[in-house]
Amino acid sequence: MPASPEKIREVIEQYVARVATGSTAEVMALFADGATVEDPVGSGVRSTPEAIREFYATLEGLEQAGEVLSARIADGQAAFLFELRTRAGEQTFTLAPIDVMTFDDDGLITSMKAYWSDADLQVS
Amino acid sequence: MPASPEKIREVIEQYVARVATGSTAEVMALFADGATVEDPVGSGVRSTPEAIREFYATLEGLEQAGEVLSARIADGQAAFLFELRTRAGEQTFTLAPIDVMTFDDDGLITSMKAYWSDADLQVS
Repeated sequence: MPASPEKIREVIEQYVARVATGSTAEVMALFADGATVEDPVGSGVRSTPEAIREFYATLEGLEQAGEVLSARIADGQAAFLFELRTRAGEQTFTLAPIDVMTFDDDGLITSMKAYWSDADLQVS
Repeated sequence: MPASPEKIREVIEQYVARVATGSTAEVMALFADGATVEDPVGSGVRSTPEAIREFYATLEGLEQAGEVLSARIADGQAAFLFELRTRAGEQTFTLAPIDVMTFDDDGLITSMKAYWSDADLQVS
């Protein structure tokens, strides 16, 4: 039985919060064994825990805030628009990707694909 | 070479406009041969022109307005949040799915998956 929409919504909220301010280990805890990550789409699929950890480790320690803007959930899968604001010195970099995820029956993420490009990065 | 982001953006705008107010033939003209449609995710994949035409024909003739709210494009693929408002008598049904599409090099749609559920339908 697929994870419930309520459970998936909770995991999405946790994911965005942990990507913004959590540790790499906290982000990794949301993924199932054998999960894949492609962020952004076209950059190549990361299919080992080491490769996925390496990706999220680059975000750890940044001064970030995250927010889920719109989430749509169907049949144990989800697509959601979220915003990640990163403060660096006097500048704020804002990126609002659309992520697509699949989940196992326990609500662990089995795959993630992030749709965005450099053209979507805003600096203020 | 994948279709350009500009071309894909144009096709997305055409898709939403034609789903809202175009004919089934106009919608179908945006799809490549062999395209697949799953709307919503979990409802089964339509993989023949007849099955796809049947799906869009149910929308033809409705009093609708459509608008792309947010589109993200990467590597010849796209995810976008859009709103479709359908007027029926005194009521307006508003649905804002997130669609994920792949495109061929000419910008024709090769696959579409729509993320939404009944819980996302708003009546006013």
